[in-house]
Amino acid sequence: MGLRLALGIDIGGTNTQFGLVEPGGSVWKRGKISTGEDPFDSFFQRLQAALDPIFEAYGPQIEGIGVGAPNAQPYRGEVLRTANLHWGEAIPVRDRFQQRFRKPVFLQNDANAAAWGEHLFGQGRAFKDFILLTLGTGLGSGIIQEGRLLLGQGGLAGELGHWIVEPEGRSCGCGRKGCLERYVSATGMVETARLWMETRSPSRWLSDRGPALTALDITKGAERGDALCLEIFDYTARILGRAMANMVACLAPEAIILFGGLAEAGAWLFSPLESYFKQDLLYLYEGKVQILSSQLPSGEAAILGAASLVWHSPLQPKEGDRG
Amino acid sequence: MGLRLALGIDIGGTNTQFGLVEPGGSVWKRGKISTGEDPFDSFFQRLQAALDPIFEAYGPQIEGIGVGAPNAQPYRGEVLRTANLHWGEAIPVRDRFQQRFRKPVFLQNDANAAAWGEHLFGQGRAFKDFILLTLGTGLGSGIIQEGRLLLGQGGLAGELGHWIVEPEGRSCGCGRKGCLERYVSATGMVETARLWMETRSPSRWLSDRGPALTALDITKGAERGDALCLEIFDYTARILGRAMANMVACLAPEAIILFGGLAEAGAWLFSPLESYFKQDLLYLYEGKVQILSSQLPSGEAAILGAASLVWHSPLQPKEGDRG
Repeated sequence: MGLRLALGIDIGGTNTQFGLVEPGGSVWKRGKISTGEDPFDSFFQRLQAALDPIFEAYGPQIEGIGVGAPNAQPYRGEVLRTANLHWGEAIPVRDRFQQRFRKPVFLQNDANAAAWGEHLFGQGRAFKDFILLTLGTGLGSGIIQEGRLLLGQGGLAGELGHWIVEPEGRSCGCGRKGCLERYVSATGMVETARLWMETRSPSRWLSDRGPALTALDITKGAERGDALCLEIFDYTARILGRAMANMVACLAPEAIILFGGLAEAGAWLFSPLESYFKQDLLYLYEGKVQILSSQLPSGEAAILGAASLVWHSPLQPKEGDRG
Repeated sequence: MGLRLALGIDIGGTNTQFGLVEPGGSVWKRGKISTGEDPFDSFFQRLQAALDPIFEAYGPQIEGIGVGAPNAQPYRGEVLRTANLHWGEAIPVRDRFQQRFRKPVFLQNDANAAAWGEHLFGQGRAFKDFILLTLGTGLGSGIIQEGRLLLGQGGLAGELGHWIVEPEGRSCGCGRKGCLERYVSATGMVETARLWMETRSPSRWLSDRGPALTALDITKGAERGDALCLEIFDYTARILGRAMANMVACLAPEAIILFGGLAEAGAWLFSPLESYFKQDLLYLYEGKVQILSSQLPSGEAAILGAASLVWHSPLQPKEGDRG
């Protein structure tokens, strides 16, 4: 049997990554462009330019295209308005790809695609019930239940980053206040740092980072023993630990797998997180839920998951447009 | 074909209700005993005494027994320690029923059984994805996803009454603080009333209820225009509305169906609830989620759902003990 390939595309708030995937899970020809703040048409032109060489070389072997994007409606094939993209109300992404590349196109929410990739090729292989949290610009989530992707009405399940956790808290791009991702994400941690630096006495080292401060800086600070940076991790873990205990009381997963930049901060996050999670967990679940860090290379879960939509039906709607 | 019957038993925090169910959903020979605070053996003796006449009359036609109980582990057939029963750590309820009555016995979490009954015979027939909230002594929940009961690890999914919603809030029987059911349940509303009556000026009418104050009194007060009672409904609705918005951001259901005593308070609860829910709902779900009141007679959903376990496999574990 000849070479079989699917193109996986992960459209994130900052970058759009892509790669050719074989059914066994190896990823070829990875590339990325910045997602940018331009309208969809201009973004799509830039993406085409990056993909054209791949289609020229492997066109006949590419069996389909899987696309993960924030606020994607898998049944309708549209991407709805999102806080992190500047495309407008409802963009018919599936049709646009299909018209341009003449291949079957499968669209899915980005974190759902990542959860699906994690389930097929990552730590999620060991579980029938798990939650994937992607900690990046925002907090995305995908839920696997009984080995299937939990989709909900219109494929819109799993927006855990928009759980209201602080009712009168920080303003969110969604128009409400106190969403989980305003605290627990790279952006959220930087916001915590900025707010605290106004009212407390940060170290010289931290002050020197200036307006370009990143979440990675906060990790570096923690490594240096910087007190405020350590406290930022503790605060972030406290909010995430409680939210995770609530996720468990809803879904009773076997594991929660963390993915993305923040997950790579390792023990600085995981150590306080495990302690707060344990403290807040309902006794029914004691000792039954693992907290893991994804071992898939950065960005690869979403590309794998998106590409796998082409071959693996569980992610696909089994009926018409339910949204 | 002859008469086919299943016995459905709903073990609640206060009462245990039972009835014979036909496959079409009609319920016969309903009865109840108080659940009481006695140990399991003594409770089971009292229940046997109530059930024996039913078995004498219909024994051969009864094809099985379905039991709904708090903290039931459907795979193991055990009821774990719960805040509202005084039975101990892990009671092998399935085996005890099976030994005594010599029929197949199916055990399920009480609110899961109610959700399943609602799905087969109630408003839930119209939906593939919905959440049932039972508002009684506590707050129970059952989740239907793609027409199946969402079970999670060990069948322990759907403990939404133990979402921590007020981190430093009221003490809960589970050993933690600020659980949703400490605020949103008959017990929770009475607790709100008591706390507020200490620090505010309740009406003469409300004060006259004394220590025997019930949630029904609060409804009666609201009907009389009692300001504090109206405010208690508003406060309860505010907490529930936000929690429901978070449930939607997890599960994207088509509907949330309320069931039990509090749901029967009607507009006093539903009117502020719809307003807070709308206010807290993520824009993605705007106008897409119905809030409904169960139309099944009080207690009947759980009996129907429990009995239906005998005939309808979707609720059954498809494999060995996963818990």
